[in-house]
Amino acid sequence: MKAYLELEARKKRVSALNNAMGILQWDQQTMMPDGAAPARATVLAELSVLVHEMETGNELSDLIDEAGTQADQLDEWQRANLREIRHGFIHANAVPAELVEKMVLAQSESHMIWREARPANDFKRLAPTLDALFQLKREEADIKAGIMGVTPYEAMLDQFDPGRREVQVDRIFDDLEQFLPGFVQQVMQKQGAVPRPVDPQGPFPVAKQRELSHEVMKIFGFPFDHGRLDTAHHPFSGGAEGDVRITTRYDEADFMKSLMAVIHETGHALYENGLPHQWRGQPVGAARGMTLHESQSLLLEMQASRSEEFVRFLVPTIKRILGGTGPAWEADNILGLYRKVEPGLVRVFADEVTYPLHVILRYRLEKAILAGELATADLPGAWNDMMQQLVGVRPTDDTDGVMQDVHWPEGIFGYFPTYSLGAMASAQIFAAAQRDNSDILPGLGRGDIRPLFDWLDLNVRSQGCLYLPDELIEKATGSPLDTAAFKASIKARYLD
Amino acid sequence: MKAYLELEARKKRVSALNNAMGILQWDQQTMMPDGAAPARATVLAELSVLVHEMETGNELSDLIDEAGTQADQLDEWQRANLREIRHGFIHANAVPAELVEKMVLAQSESHMIWREARPANDFKRLAPTLDALFQLKREEADIKAGIMGVTPYEAMLDQFDPGRREVQVDRIFDDLEQFLPGFVQQVMQKQGAVPRPVDPQGPFPVAKQRELSHEVMKIFGFPFDHGRLDTAHHPFSGGAEGDVRITTRYDEADFMKSLMAVIHETGHALYENGLPHQWRGQPVGAARGMTLHESQSLLLEMQASRSEEFVRFLVPTIKRILGGTGPAWEADNILGLYRKVEPGLVRVFADEVTYPLHVILRYRLEKAILAGELATADLPGAWNDMMQQLVGVRPTDDTDGVMQDVHWPEGIFGYFPTYSLGAMASAQIFAAAQRDNSDILPGLGRGDIRPLFDWLDLNVRSQGCLYLPDELIEKATGSPLDTAAFKASIKARYLD
Repeated sequence: MKAYLELEARKKRVSALNNAMGILQWDQQTMMPDGAAPARATVLAELSVLVHEMETGNELSDLIDEAGTQADQLDEWQRANLREIRHGFIHANAVPAELVEKMVLAQSESHMIWREARPANDFKRLAPTLDALFQLKREEADIKAGIMGVTPYEAMLDQFDPGRREVQVDRIFDDLEQFLPGFVQQVMQKQGAVPRPVDPQGPFPVAKQRELSHEVMKIFGFPFDHGRLDTAHHPFSGGAEGDVRITTRYDEADFMKSLMAVIHETGHALYENGLPHQWRGQPVGAARGMTLHESQSLLLEMQASRSEEFVRFLVPTIKRILGGTGPAWEADNILGLYRKVEPGLVRVFADEVTYPLHVILRYRLEKAILAGELATADLPGAWNDMMQQLVGVRPTDDTDGVMQDVHWPEGIFGYFPTYSLGAMASAQIFAAAQRDNSDILPGLGRGDIRPLFDWLDLNVRSQGCLYLPDELIEKATGSPLDTAAFKASIKARYLD
Repeated sequence: MKAYLELEARKKRVSALNNAMGILQWDQQTMMPDGAAPARATVLAELSVLVHEMETGNELSDLIDEAGTQADQLDEWQRANLREIRHGFIHANAVPAELVEKMVLAQSESHMIWREARPANDFKRLAPTLDALFQLKREEADIKAGIMGVTPYEAMLDQFDPGRREVQVDRIFDDLEQFLPGFVQQVMQKQGAVPRPVDPQGPFPVAKQRELSHEVMKIFGFPFDHGRLDTAHHPFSGGAEGDVRITTRYDEADFMKSLMAVIHETGHALYENGLPHQWRGQPVGAARGMTLHESQSLLLEMQASRSEEFVRFLVPTIKRILGGTGPAWEADNILGLYRKVEPGLVRVFADEVTYPLHVILRYRLEKAILAGELATADLPGAWNDMMQQLVGVRPTDDTDGVMQDVHWPEGIFGYFPTYSLGAMASAQIFAAAQRDNSDILPGLGRGDIRPLFDWLDLNVRSQGCLYLPDELIEKATGSPLDTAAFKASIKARYLD
């Protein structure tokens, strides 16, 4: 027990540093004056090194081993906490410090070059540094794979969605790849046969949009005494334990962009806020990986908020605050706008139906990159071919082609799948919740989120990291993660 | 050299944590949602413990000793840095961890009780915990005094104004105690013989006052790419290296309060911003204690901004932004308002002439407390008697008497003198600058702060902690710190 309690004490300290970094990173995107950027980068780098030191080393390894021999003295949550501590240790400790340092430098360089090469449509400029970074990531993946006894790609995926297997991802993505292209055609045909929905005409002043954001966040019970809404270049959810901060950006010509971003980030924030308070500061009290996290944001954004019930409830509020009148502001038209399906080049603008195809493309390519089967120079061509084949459109430049995402230039491999696995999970969880409580959709229709959130609190949020992601999903929904609920949901929404 | 460089590396890391804490503390006062307060306190406490661990221990002590034996290999700045590192080590390491912990608990308890006892005018409730805290502070002061070879009070003072001796403070304060009471009478007589200045009538909307704040900060060259202005319950200057953040609070009935707070905090911020950039992250690159810090805020607030030249320059801007017209908005009237002298009970509302008397009272009493010569139960009576004697007014309750300041309930001894030593220094530095450059006052008259700031950059800001506070003042002004310039300044301002 003593070894375990010592581990808890150490994790509490690491968590203090992580919480500090969470606020500093939020500040960096929202409040920090531009000139402070280099100094802030130094502070964050020093704190990261400190955390890394606290999360590695033989002493920690010995403590984990010792606690493991006394696991029978631990209760269920403590055992799960120890499992998560061990998991974190493996990821932190697997890679030699020298390789970590090389990766940090290469990531920082390629990110910097990407920021200039992307708008200049100059992939050739980015390629050499990207190539060097890919080589380092291959080394990292191979080392971790050896230690963890998984494939190199799984070792990457495991950072974001612990325990996830390639075979599952393949099964889900193969299924979607079979199903979606034809489905997209069907939906477009159906949508082409009716009048196009009309865009409400702006401008929509930022102050009014902010008021609408706060109003919607209130409907969802956002804990304003434990969180904030601010403006940043990119919407995100961040902050610290007990202090969940989300951001959005406002487009005065289109209020829906910010509204949906706010709802999406509110979903993330409410998940964080609903994690088990008594386990704050410990790994078992943290969010259950990025697939689950994305399931919670998409559940709010795509499942709940775009339900006919909720849109009909919300439209009068939107009209009141933004002062809209006329046919463009009718609930049916707003629903039509929310449900427009259209293949496009850019992932972040994609609708929920075509989105998984963008993710599948990245999944296939990053697996090939990690396996050394795709030369960096061939990446743009491979991207364009696959985009044509999966989504049915072909990029005319690399700006909105292979260079559109920051992930690879930042050395992030294994993250992309969690977007669509999260979409699958959101549909599956929402369907399970409705089976358990038939008042969830009617609740949304009267702006009452409690029936849905009571279910989520009990089955998802309060569970922290007690189980592995897949165990949690199966316990909550009664079946392993698959595509059935997602397919049923989009069929009902777009074809019925 | 190796030992010294290792010390620099360690200090750089400590500085990253201190910068992180600076932003977290700023956030706590400006942005943080209320419910996050307990979690934030935990994060800050953990970071403080980390810093304390990094700043103590035998290994560090050995490094300092070793670097000391190689001091001939160091340049002037490195030697000063080593001196500051040693100074910080003594303060951090002198007191046993057990006593530190007791003090932290006692401070936190007495601060908490003070927050309730003060508005309830219930000193009896505060007395026991205050008494226990005083006992711990006596222990701390005695231990440090023994190690440092100074008096117990000097050991406390040394935390805020390194190297300061009681005998100097006594000489300055005795002089002021002789001079000021009679001077106050003379000024009041003179002011009583002319019509009272008239208060401009509000309300002054917060947005307009904020615009005025930004305008004035721009005149002073506040680095908005390396800093911010926000709103908080109490005006302060904080943030991090390269990221100086000030706050104010707005009273819609009185725009001068916030205006002067903004100028005061801008003075603090510009000092921080002007410290030697190449020494950021090292003790020698930090501000030279609280007397110097206060001298920089008061120099801007009391010396420069209340000069007739600057007031005449600024009044049209004030009128333009706040939309004022009529006699109350004339420069002579505004000058009259700024220069009203009136004895009062509360230090933070005191004018520059009576302010030192409030400080002298606290200095005398806290010395007696530390020496064990004044029982806590007798404190309110001693306070009231001395207030009567020094300021000429007698408190009718303890709320605005002995309980008005947070310092003692927070265990802060030795800080009070720096307010008035800073006032002496500000007058002395301003006078020296004018002797060196006769364009300083004319510059203020045309809103050109450069002549003054060029001098301050060269003689004060860029010097960091290269010298001890008194050495810096003497090098910059040609004489040791005394009362002459201050007395000359108030004579010229209030009697001529």
